[in-house]
Amino acid sequence: MSLPISHEPAPNSADDAADLVSPETTQRRYPVVRLRPKAEARAIRHGFPWVYADELVTDRRTNNLAPGALAILVDGERRDLGLVTVNTNSKIIARMLDRNPEATLDQAWFEAKLTRALGLRARIYDKPFYRLVHAEADGLPGIVIDRFGDTAVIQPNAAWAEAHLPILVAALQAVTGVQTVVKNATGRSRGLEGLNEENLVLVGGVSAPIQVPMNGATYLADVTGGQKTGLFFDQRPNHAFAAGLARDARVLDVFAHVGGFGLAALAGGAASTLAVDASAPALALAGQGAAASGFADRFTTRQGDAFEVLEALGAEAAQFDLVICDPPAFAPAKPALEAGLRAYERIARLAAPLVAPGGYLVLCSCSHAADLASFRNASARGIGRGGRRGQLLHTGFAGPDHPMLPQLAESGYLKALFFRLD
Amino acid sequence: MSLPISHEPAPNSADDAADLVSPETTQRRYPVVRLRPKAEARAIRHGFPWVYADELVTDRRTNNLAPGALAILVDGERRDLGLVTVNTNSKIIARMLDRNPEATLDQAWFEAKLTRALGLRARIYDKPFYRLVHAEADGLPGIVIDRFGDTAVIQPNAAWAEAHLPILVAALQAVTGVQTVVKNATGRSRGLEGLNEENLVLVGGVSAPIQVPMNGATYLADVTGGQKTGLFFDQRPNHAFAAGLARDARVLDVFAHVGGFGLAALAGGAASTLAVDASAPALALAGQGAAASGFADRFTTRQGDAFEVLEALGAEAAQFDLVICDPPAFAPAKPALEAGLRAYERIARLAAPLVAPGGYLVLCSCSHAADLASFRNASARGIGRGGRRGQLLHTGFAGPDHPMLPQLAESGYLKALFFRLD
Repeated sequence: MSLPISHEPAPNSADDAADLVSPETTQRRYPVVRLRPKAEARAIRHGFPWVYADELVTDRRTNNLAPGALAILVDGERRDLGLVTVNTNSKIIARMLDRNPEATLDQAWFEAKLTRALGLRARIYDKPFYRLVHAEADGLPGIVIDRFGDTAVIQPNAAWAEAHLPILVAALQAVTGVQTVVKNATGRSRGLEGLNEENLVLVGGVSAPIQVPMNGATYLADVTGGQKTGLFFDQRPNHAFAAGLARDARVLDVFAHVGGFGLAALAGGAASTLAVDASAPALALAGQGAAASGFADRFTTRQGDAFEVLEALGAEAAQFDLVICDPPAFAPAKPALEAGLRAYERIARLAAPLVAPGGYLVLCSCSHAADLASFRNASARGIGRGGRRGQLLHTGFAGPDHPMLPQLAESGYLKALFFRLD
Repeated sequence: MSLPISHEPAPNSADDAADLVSPETTQRRYPVVRLRPKAEARAIRHGFPWVYADELVTDRRTNNLAPGALAILVDGERRDLGLVTVNTNSKIIARMLDRNPEATLDQAWFEAKLTRALGLRARIYDKPFYRLVHAEADGLPGIVIDRFGDTAVIQPNAAWAEAHLPILVAALQAVTGVQTVVKNATGRSRGLEGLNEENLVLVGGVSAPIQVPMNGATYLADVTGGQKTGLFFDQRPNHAFAAGLARDARVLDVFAHVGGFGLAALAGGAASTLAVDASAPALALAGQGAAASGFADRFTTRQGDAFEVLEALGAEAAQFDLVICDPPAFAPAKPALEAGLRAYERIARLAAPLVAPGGYLVLCSCSHAADLASFRNASARGIGRGGRRGQLLHTGFAGPDHPMLPQLAESGYLKALFFRLD
């Protein structure tokens, strides 16, 4: 027999499936996985979307489930909790997909999730450039979709997502009308899920970087060759806040990537922006963005290691009215926390002396492991060691196209601190 | 002899002062107070602005200092730390005024502080309506000044501020050109400082509520009779975020005061706003603001206890697309924390069912004692008990005209959580 999963490109073979069927599951649409008797089902009933490995009965049947397999989650008393996707290789062994344990993951199911996600973004943004799907909070665990007008970039960072990719793409086209769909397979978690790193254009074609209008500037996103999905939408409100400080300012944008902060500052009336990045292709895109925005005469770049450039600028006694440092994650996970906080402190210590008296310093962290207080303390310590004092004006997080489940809000990764230095 | 405090309307009598002079202080401009040998001076050297009572040597000389007296703070080894104001009745026994222990608090000193504060606000805001001075972070402990065009409202919430009020007012007029200065004496901490609660118009005159342009609406602030300084500038960025969700929405604004969220939502295109408040005068001002903004036809009010009105609306099965609850501080201090969190949970539980599917719920706390995680958990629990689930879109704090010292950033009191409910 085969399991009646009509719309599911099941990761389990029919043989595996037969092996999984026990008397208690013959009536069910999917295999059943069970919480340990002492595991707390209440949080899951109240919306917590994850089951940790030590909370699940991992018998032979469960261990035989292929990464990404769908299963019905029941509590210790065998009461239904919902439909989950299982990955026995992960600490997060199951992720909730639907409170209905018999849900069918057909195109209509994906269209409903995407329609809900689109409704939020369409309310907030005038133009269709945003993160359309932000994984768990949008009901699609492990799936990230960024939209660039009529192009969408999907990151299927979980095995269940890879398996359902064709039906997800069809639903995406139906709901949004995008003409081009790109698959970005560079997500760190794909390896754990047994997935490859092959980027693909799934629908349509991409011939050049895409122009992205944001905060009064025009950015260029390389959606097939760039970092992650080509442009970081998460910093948009922080770019805007920095732009509000930038009138007539000399701006230094360190870890500039494609010019996120620097071009927004120019749109806000900055006198000049110097963009620093280790990546020549990123700086080239930033320069093209400056030209497309009409800011070319106020925009310069300096390629190099950010720490080295900060030290060199210090040696030159360079001064700026607004300095922004938006580095990659120095502390992506707990083992890197101490070293990461030292790196954040060092950034602050090197950047603070470059800020003219009364000027502004923006320090960002996208490290999951560094919480707000730790990052703020490291930043304040670095500013002090750089010989400066200041006020904290504003703390910003990722924009509202990056919603969170309230139950996972502690994990808000992006922090931006805006200081004014005496 | 009398102490040579030329510009200081000293709270100590000449007799007290004579009593304070010891051999070690005869050469100094102000009396000297000393940290205990084991007290940590490093934090103060790095910008921490407070000395707690158990950190200071409280001998007879120190205990004889009148609340608000100026003194030179030295560390356990008698090295200078700076000029402080002392209040032996307070847990925070000394607050840093100047790193120069011999500073003269003359008009030029106040003008320098106010010029620095004004520089920040003038950069951020087009129109002169903002919190001009936010106490410690603006270098003026215990002093709050809100500016409403050519009118300023001062809250001198510390004895040193009351003693220096004439010179502060002169400096304020010189730096900003305001024509009218009002003293608001309702601050909770004034009693502790031995100060009365008498509100006064110090300069000029106030004949009517002041029109305040903010987020596309016009508010009316009663700067002589209203709560605190008549209008809360701190919520401005949160009003703006709510306005961005409000297009065509039916809005319920609970604890509306003079219409902060409700009028901003109407400026953002809301179909209607129902404003709820216990205060008839506040709702009258909100109504006048709606009229002044041209929103009168979309604005209604309901006077009453917020909990009772929420319950009544629930009984009526009323539905809104955007519900905002911005209550007074339920947990102003630690002893009230548990009860306060229960009250926040109850607000969320009563408000959630009033949100139409796919609509938005904004929950605010201005409680010092309830930190962000505690408030978020109480809110999420309340939403769950109200039978709903949702995403957290945005977390907002007080605006940048309410800066913080990084060392005191844990005490950021204002939190606004923006949820979307399924």
